[in-house]
Amino acid sequence: MADRYFDDFEIGERMVTAGITLTESLIIDFAMRYDPQPFHIDVEAAKASNYGGLIASGFQTLALGFRMVLETGIFRACGMGSPGFDELRWLKPVRPGDTLHSELEVIDKKPSASKPDRGMLRMRYRIRNQRDEDVITFTSMQLTRRRPS
Amino acid sequence: MADRYFDDFEIGERMVTAGITLTESLIIDFAMRYDPQPFHIDVEAAKASNYGGLIASGFQTLALGFRMVLETGIFRACGMGSPGFDELRWLKPVRPGDTLHSELEVIDKKPSASKPDRGMLRMRYRIRNQRDEDVITFTSMQLTRRRPS
Repeated sequence: MADRYFDDFEIGERMVTAGITLTESLIIDFAMRYDPQPFHIDVEAAKASNYGGLIASGFQTLALGFRMVLETGIFRACGMGSPGFDELRWLKPVRPGDTLHSELEVIDKKPSASKPDRGMLRMRYRIRNQRDEDVITFTSMQLTRRRPS
Repeated sequence: MADRYFDDFEIGERMVTAGITLTESLIIDFAMRYDPQPFHIDVEAAKASNYGGLIASGFQTLALGFRMVLETGIFRACGMGSPGFDELRWLKPVRPGDTLHSELEVIDKKPSASKPDRGMLRMRYRIRNQRDEDVITFTSMQLTRRRPS
């Protein structure tokens, strides 16, 4: 993908990423460090939980959903970080063997009033599974560089 | 800490966690897998970025902030997962050597109308550094088990 800048994003534009399959090993490895709740690290305890089996940490699914977007290259030249996310919802459990991808839509863009080299994108993210069910949705603010003149 | 249930949390109650120091190695290790942007994985590129040096992935700081809360044990007996987070803000960069802790406050609680075994807590999180600056703030919904009768 050619380098993109703030100026190249259009409101209403949509993108779909490639996918990644979350395995039991990846789920437990992440959760042991970052989210050691029984339903993320203990297969037997997870069976007895309200989830009925092992599920991925929502933080892992969130980070992977964003990573898949990074891999498209849309922020490679322009990404300057994010001030925040809104309305983050964990909608469906992610289980070992589930394959995730992300879909995103540009819902707003505003050039910075004070800094002429950058602008803010607002993007709607849907992280979806192999059945095209939303597992996480959120709205992000993404600070992006303007095209160098 | 004795096991806590939905019934034991009080609106206005505050908690402070123990801390953890994020190292350069931990920052790069996480970001290589989950957030491979130059300012998270490449010390030299990070120097030239708008952050002026390597910073931790916001997803890593968020997950660690939550992990420190898990380690207090408040959700050990009652935690049933979270439907979502709102107003997540990445306020300050986290740099190698920074020591983080979390502060949280119960801002609302509601028993489930349909399921008598559980209730929803709304909690305000502040993940703070060694200078007591907020680095991330957000509001979470936390589904919790009621005390078994």
